Amino acid sequence: MNKFEKVTTGTGEECGVFGAYGLDGEDVAASIYYGLFALQHRGQESCGIAVTDTSGERKMISKKGLGLVNDVFDEESLSSLKGNLGIGHVRYSTAGASRAENAMPLVINYIKGTLAIAHNGNLTNAVELRKELEYTGAIFQTTIDSEVIAYHIARERIKTHSAEQAVKAAMQKIKGAYALVVSSPRKMIGARDPFGLKPLCIGKRGDTYYLASESCAIAAVGGEFVRDVEPGEIVSITKDGITSDTSLAVEKGQEARCIFEYIYFARTDSKIDGVNVYHARIVAGKALAESYPVEADLVVGVPDSGLVAAKGYSEGSGIPYGMAFHKNSYVGRTFIKPKQSQRESSVKIKLNVIEEVVKGKRIILVDDSIVRGTTSANIIKMLKKAGAKEVHVRISSPPFLYPCYFGTDVPSNEQLIAHTHTKDEICKIIGADTLGYMELEKLEEMIPGLGFCDACFTGKYPMEVPGKDVSHAFE
Amino acid sequence: MNKFEKVTTGTGEECGVFGAYGLDGEDVAASIYYGLFALQHRGQESCGIAVTDTSGERKMISKKGLGLVNDVFDEESLSSLKGNLGIGHVRYSTAGASRAENAMPLVINYIKGTLAIAHNGNLTNAVELRKELEYTGAIFQTTIDSEVIAYHIARERIKTHSAEQAVKAAMQKIKGAYALVVSSPRKMIGARDPFGLKPLCIGKRGDTYYLASESCAIAAVGGEFVRDVEPGEIVSITKDGITSDTSLAVEKGQEARCIFEYIYFARTDSKIDGVNVYHARIVAGKALAESYPVEADLVVGVPDSGLVAAKGYSEGSGIPYGMAFHKNSYVGRTFIKPKQSQRESSVKIKLNVIEEVVKGKRIILVDDSIVRGTTSANIIKMLKKAGAKEVHVRISSPPFLYPCYFGTDVPSNEQLIAHTHTKDEICKIIGADTLGYMELEKLEEMIPGLGFCDACFTGKYPMEVPGKDVSHAFE
Amino acid sequence: MNKFEKVTTGTGEECGVFGAYGLDGEDVAASIYYGLFALQHRGQESCGIAVTDTSGERKMISKKGLGLVNDVFDEESLSSLKGNLGIGHVRYSTAGASRAENAMPLVINYIKGTLAIAHNGNLTNAVELRKELEYTGAIFQTTIDSEVIAYHIARERIKTHSAEQAVKAAMQKIKGAYALVVSSPRKMIGARDPFGLKPLCIGKRGDTYYLASESCAIAAVGGEFVRDVEPGEIVSITKDGITSDTSLAVEKGQEARCIFEYIYFARTDSKIDGVNVYHARIVAGKALAESYPVEADLVVGVPDSGLVAAKGYSEGSGIPYGMAFHKNSYVGRTFIKPKQSQRESSVKIKLNVIEEVVKGKRIILVDDSIVRGTTSANIIKMLKKAGAKEVHVRISSPPFLYPCYFGTDVPSNEQLIAHTHTKDEICKIIGADTLGYMELEKLEEMIPGLGFCDACFTGKYPMEVPGKDVSHAFE
Amino acid sequence: MNKFEKVTTGTGEECGVFGAYGLDGEDVAASIYYGLFALQHRGQESCGIAVTDTSGERKMISKKGLGLVNDVFDEESLSSLKGNLGIGHVRYSTAGASRAENAMPLVINYIKGTLAIAHNGNLTNAVELRKELEYTGAIFQTTIDSEVIAYHIARERIKTHSAEQAVKAAMQKIKGAYALVVSSPRKMIGARDPFGLKPLCIGKRGDTYYLASESCAIAAVGGEFVRDVEPGEIVSITKDGITSDTSLAVEKGQEARCIFEYIYFARTDSKIDGVNVYHARIVAGKALAESYPVEADLVVGVPDSGLVAAKGYSEGSGIPYGMAFHKNSYVGRTFIKPKQSQRESSVKIKLNVIEEVVKGKRIILVDDSIVRGTTSANIIKMLKKAGAKEVHVRISSPPFLYPCYFGTDVPSNEQLIAHTHTKDEICKIIGADTLGYMELEKLEEMIPGLGFCDACFTGKYPMEVPGKDVSHAFE
Repeated sequence: MNKFEKVTTGTGEECGVFGAYGLDGEDVAASIYYGLFALQHRGQESCGIAVTDTSGERKMISKKGLGLVNDVFDEESLSSLKGNLGIGHVRYSTAGASRAENAMPLVINYIKGTLAIAHNGNLTNAVELRKELEYTGAIFQTTIDSEVIAYHIARERIKTHSAEQAVKAAMQKIKGAYALVVSSPRKMIGARDPFGLKPLCIGKRGDTYYLASESCAIAAVGGEFVRDVEPGEIVSITKDGITSDTSLAVEKGQEARCIFEYIYFARTDSKIDGVNVYHARIVAGKALAESYPVEADLVVGVPDSGLVAAKGYSEGSGIPYGMAFHKNSYVGRTFIKPKQSQRESSVKIKLNVIEEVVKGKRIILVDDSIVRGTTSANIIKMLKKAGAKEVHVRISSPPFLYPCYFGTDVPSNEQLIAHTHTKDEICKIIGADTLGYMELEKLEEMIPGLGFCDACFTGKYPMEVPGKDVSHAFE
Repeated sequence: MNKFEKVTTGTGEECGVFGAYGLDGEDVAASIYYGLFALQHRGQESCGIAVTDTSGERKMISKKGLGLVNDVFDEESLSSLKGNLGIGHVRYSTAGASRAENAMPLVINYIKGTLAIAHNGNLTNAVELRKELEYTGAIFQTTIDSEVIAYHIARERIKTHSAEQAVKAAMQKIKGAYALVVSSPRKMIGARDPFGLKPLCIGKRGDTYYLASESCAIAAVGGEFVRDVEPGEIVSITKDGITSDTSLAVEKGQEARCIFEYIYFARTDSKIDGVNVYHARIVAGKALAESYPVEADLVVGVPDSGLVAAKGYSEGSGIPYGMAFHKNSYVGRTFIKPKQSQRESSVKIKLNVIEEVVKGKRIILVDDSIVRGTTSANIIKMLKKAGAKEVHVRISSPPFLYPCYFGTDVPSNEQLIAHTHTKDEICKIIGADTLGYMELEKLEEMIPGLGFCDACFTGKYPMEVPGKDVSHAFE
Repeated sequence: MNKFEKVTTGTGEECGVFGAYGLDGEDVAASIYYGLFALQHRGQESCGIAVTDTSGERKMISKKGLGLVNDVFDEESLSSLKGNLGIGHVRYSTAGASRAENAMPLVINYIKGTLAIAHNGNLTNAVELRKELEYTGAIFQTTIDSEVIAYHIARERIKTHSAEQAVKAAMQKIKGAYALVVSSPRKMIGARDPFGLKPLCIGKRGDTYYLASESCAIAAVGGEFVRDVEPGEIVSITKDGITSDTSLAVEKGQEARCIFEYIYFARTDSKIDGVNVYHARIVAGKALAESYPVEADLVVGVPDSGLVAAKGYSEGSGIPYGMAFHKNSYVGRTFIKPKQSQRESSVKIKLNVIEEVVKGKRIILVDDSIVRGTTSANIIKMLKKAGAKEVHVRISSPPFLYPCYFGTDVPSNEQLIAHTHTKDEICKIIGADTLGYMELEKLEEMIPGLGFCDACFTGKYPMEVPGKDVSHAFE
Repeated sequence: MNKFEKVTTGTGEECGVFGAYGLDGEDVAASIYYGLFALQHRGQESCGIAVTDTSGERKMISKKGLGLVNDVFDEESLSSLKGNLGIGHVRYSTAGASRAENAMPLVINYIKGTLAIAHNGNLTNAVELRKELEYTGAIFQTTIDSEVIAYHIARERIKTHSAEQAVKAAMQKIKGAYALVVSSPRKMIGARDPFGLKPLCIGKRGDTYYLASESCAIAAVGGEFVRDVEPGEIVSITKDGITSDTSLAVEKGQEARCIFEYIYFARTDSKIDGVNVYHARIVAGKALAESYPVEADLVVGVPDSGLVAAKGYSEGSGIPYGMAFHKNSYVGRTFIKPKQSQRESSVKIKLNVIEEVVKGKRIILVDDSIVRGTTSANIIKMLKKAGAKEVHVRISSPPFLYPCYFGTDVPSNEQLIAHTHTKDEICKIIGADTLGYMELEKLEEMIPGLGFCDACFTGKYPMEVPGKDVSHAFE
């Protein structure tokens, strides 16, 4: 299931970034458009593109707006965005008022000319940094962390010799999770936080370099995957090629890649830090099969995010994989939701059970997570109504128990069923015959050898977090 | 793959119809909206809803527009469409200029008050009927067949005692393929052409009756499937229940259901004339496995329309089913196409290969049809680039050779690769290792015992068609 | 004051029509756009243009929509409307739901190909004609009289030798007020009803001919005024020039030109049937000065429609003319009206008094009519608050007492202050010091020698009207 | 004539500001909307409103957009702007790309919470101040001077005890022309630059205070004019009433009010610094009559800006005032301009001559300025074609000769006809019989006793200006 419905609170910094630099002068706006299009799953609230012509006046032109990439850009606007260096951004849909001013990239004029910045992630010390900056006369026009980062880069740039050094100095001040893409008049800079919480990678096609949140975006523009930007690494792409600075990285093994990228966020055709997302989900499915075997006739996944883990469970258990659902391809942001009284049919509008497949069968239903439990309950009800004899639910992640301070949009605790109920209670509430969650200790099998963050399951944060005390409060 | 890209010529009458009648006075616009939403795959060009309040003034209110159901309707417009009897329509995207005036339902005032009509299909004698009508002073404001049908109903209504009789008399004049939904002040009438080329079914929830092109739309509104409208049947739903007239039906076994509904058009969760579309595609896949066995490691389908047939091939052959592609969920109508020079990446924007799945594997690739061959060629190229050792293409329909006069949008012959090349040539052109098409004689296994139309493969039309001579010309 | 606010009921057929035929093949869509733009005051609800290329396929292309000419058309849509023969229409804003389907021109296919029709006016026997047509199987898709007219032309065309003859035969059936512009594949036909209630004139620039509701539209496109179409005349413009048929005209002197065209509707720079609208209003103002002299310091008009009559009063009385008001140039259709509680300021947003001009002065305030009296009361209040010592109101038309059946949108009787109150009562209600209405017998001075209709003041209709009895009821 | 067409270069800071503070808690968004609506003539490019609830959370909510007030706001957006303290802005239409990010008010978070700022005017030291700020790490997201002002207020606020003091300290740094409206959490502050180049005034209705660029906006919301903000004055409105600080004002008589506010910008129903704009224009007209008398039959003004001066000329000369033109009320921003080849008719679409008025007459034509001369030439041509025997042009301002650095949008010198031609040449070019410009020495009669700026005519700037050298260059 599309998770965007789950959002109700949170800072909402799951986003996608994409940068392109045509060293031979080729216009990049169209490529950025396609790149963002491939990253649309990472954010549907707003999007934007800023480009500059490195050989000309180096004036930055940008366009941003609320809505999907397809809504905001058309042929006319793309062709007016002339320039061979540019960055783009898709922003997550958060609850509440439309915030057009928060659309990225942030384009600023500063001491060294123009600079555009796009980021994915959440700073944990943003509030303190804002206060500090305000005490020296800073003004803020948005509520996004990019503005804090931009101020730091601008201030450091006065004291340093290059944009890269300014980015590095800024990174020594900011804390939290981030993947950054910055375009300075003739440079495209990418950076990941020292723990590598958010992904970023490099691609290339001909003389054009790309930076992207996920490798799928590089494939979409016909580029070759070059490599991941490493946790803590700053890369700078200029006409002289790529330079790299990895001195801010945490010690090997201390990285804290967000495990949820593999479980849910990223596309199955992306590869992050050497691990295919598809592979990681297959492994998760197999692990579930091992931990919670059950006699059944068919393994099915909740489209789209549960499908690959279901395949893994099938492979692990030897029980056939089936397609139990038709998902409506036209469900999008602007979908008018049925009124509360018709709540059940809200799921039906998105998903319908293929009766023939499930009738008389014992079903293993795989999904990536349970948030409030309502959606799961509705799906199970639909399966049983279609004749499923048993429904065994397997969840490819451990229960959510702790808040995420790094940009993953998890509902507040009262709304998390796992926070207020035991596994047995949940099983009963959703109407499943049995219920199994991915075991914590098996998470590392998904990305063997790679340090990752599982704080939302364990409460063990890779760094100090502002609300530590608050989170203890509800343990 | 989404087929709408294949359209370049043709009459474009693949559409979806949905009607709802709340006998207890319940407003139906929201249900029609969700019903049309479930039928959106049948038409993306325009849509519309017309409702009337059977207990009040019986004034018809309607709203139509170019675009998807989500684009045309919002909460405000839905709540202004007050009425307990209504019909809706989604229209197929045809090439060429936007034709706002062709959006349905057609709402008319005639001798007996107001009448709304929506239909799916194509009349073969529309041109003659228009001429005939014009000779008696008729004026036409659209180019849709509904207007011809409406005229006939209006004229017959003068001579007959009921709307049903007028519909029947009109059906004796019109020829071709159609599924009709008509709302007369206090009746909802549904009808299928005598051969049953286009599907239509009846659903119910509480005191509300539904008519829908496919059963999936009834499920979407939380209704129960009651039964199919039979080929040649006219059903009338009033507060006294359902009445039926089947006297126009062709002889049992002579029906000519469009086989392409099962192969491609209809949703896999729909059941048409007693046969699950999912089931029919599984059977097709199995038949392909039987006809064209090959040693391979994995069977994969082209999303979304090839997936179920691929599953069938896997079941038939015992070769594992795999997911080779990630399909971008945000691809829609307004997508800006890459310029010709970037042609290859157009497919990449929609689909990306999951390298891990196909690397080093011998792949069986199942799709529902080959039109120009370009898309297939690109997909095979992508698979090979991702490391597939062999790609064996299996198509779940026989080659297109003849034009369809009943509303299926098939490109002109020059564009059909099967029309100008042999199977071996096509195999080579698309870069496949082997190629197999569904065998004509096995089509009936998909819907055993049901009469169907396979004229696009055989040229044997169930009735006289206007362009018969033309089609002979290119045989 | 802009009168469109006064509308609450009525049939709303005040409209503007414009046709252009480039005999040398020149595209006419841009000219029609500017022509409609000049006629925008005649209708703000919807507009449309239909063009055809007389030398090519003669396919009709049209675009219609709700809103002002500027909202509906842009450069792109204008340049897609290729053709050297075309007609356009602006439609009046009526109360109630948006009626996109009622936008004109009406474009139809009929026995002789394609035909577009646009009209201004109101048929008095439309209801009977619709019924009659329905009894012979006609279907109606709109509620506009054009559809009735189109049916008659289509039916007559079967029996006649030319489009002109068909138009003439149709005119013998329809009754009421109308100015028609019709484009038949290679002809542009214009016609006025036998009484000449609605205006229509002919213009020319180079080889392009124009038909327009008012001569101002011909000036706007740089054309020369040729002549008026006469009451009852049918003109046909082809590459062979203009032909005329005046056999349907009423007897000289029996014409019934709408006097309100001169009082309020038409632009002051238009000339209708030989009389300048500006001149007619000056005469009206002078007549008022003669009938209701008063000692005063300044004559001011309510912008914009009262300004010229005020000038006339000034000329007639010798009392200086002054500008008492600033009118906000940005007031338009989409203006958000203040809530009832702020009613008074609604006028203030449109008009503001220039204090310096009126302070300490005895003012003669000229307006074209009083409908409900609220606006007049507010304006007088504003003048007095700004220091006017006296306000003497002079109205350049007699009191409205009878309904108009010919397309002038007059509120229902209960809302007409003149219908429920005496002149003295009205004077008191609006807070004027004295009040004078144009005298009935002086109306003819405005358009000496020309027959006109004053039924809204006298109840003496030039022809039988459907609601005669109803109107008697309230006499 | 509407002057916005004249714009081709320049900084474009002619704008309108409006603030409202409901001390009793009344919502102010609707009032701001109407206030901006009344100021729409001061800027049509973009507009915005920012409001805050002084008794609640004091969160600032804002909405800004490209377009007219009517385009950007609707009932829904106005009702979502809840708050009893708010400011709004309309921005001038400048040539070039749309600059959504430059729409005002600028809303910032700074050391003391949230602050909104709107201004009209142009800083002459903006470039230096930006550089200075950048050297201390400032980042800029727009190109508007408000951002520079906001930074200074923010930085000064750290060192000062109140927002008023911070505004004052900022004003000691910035140079140029400005009228400021600032909303700080519980204060509404207004300020004019020491020379008073731009106007600002105070109004009141019940417990709600207003600040507005022109008094017409106060009238539009039903308020009473309280007084002008004085040149150099800072007023602060809180629940304790109005406080004032005038210590920054230049010496009495040294003020430099923009004379063009009286000649052209401001509405005729506004009063600025004690002088009615209407009155000033009457005086200008009289002065023209005195300087350039001519025998003639009629004085006419070019709508709308020449009308009052024409009235003044008529009063001064005793020659009757006439209405020679009908101006199309629907001309607006989105008007599609005729192609170059139809240049002449561009004026005709906006204005049409009322033939009857001018035929055979010797006309005195009054306008406020001549920029390129094209429009004047077209109008004179139209008058002559309509039969005017003579056309004597009188311009109510001296010739433009010097650039304005304070925000008045004057074309570059090459485009100014007065810059490249003598009066006699211009007279000939535009086809006038005689031509007279307002005499420099008579300007002061328009606003007797008030210091004003006439630098665009004389080159004598009230303060140092950045381009002094440049301007000398073309003297």
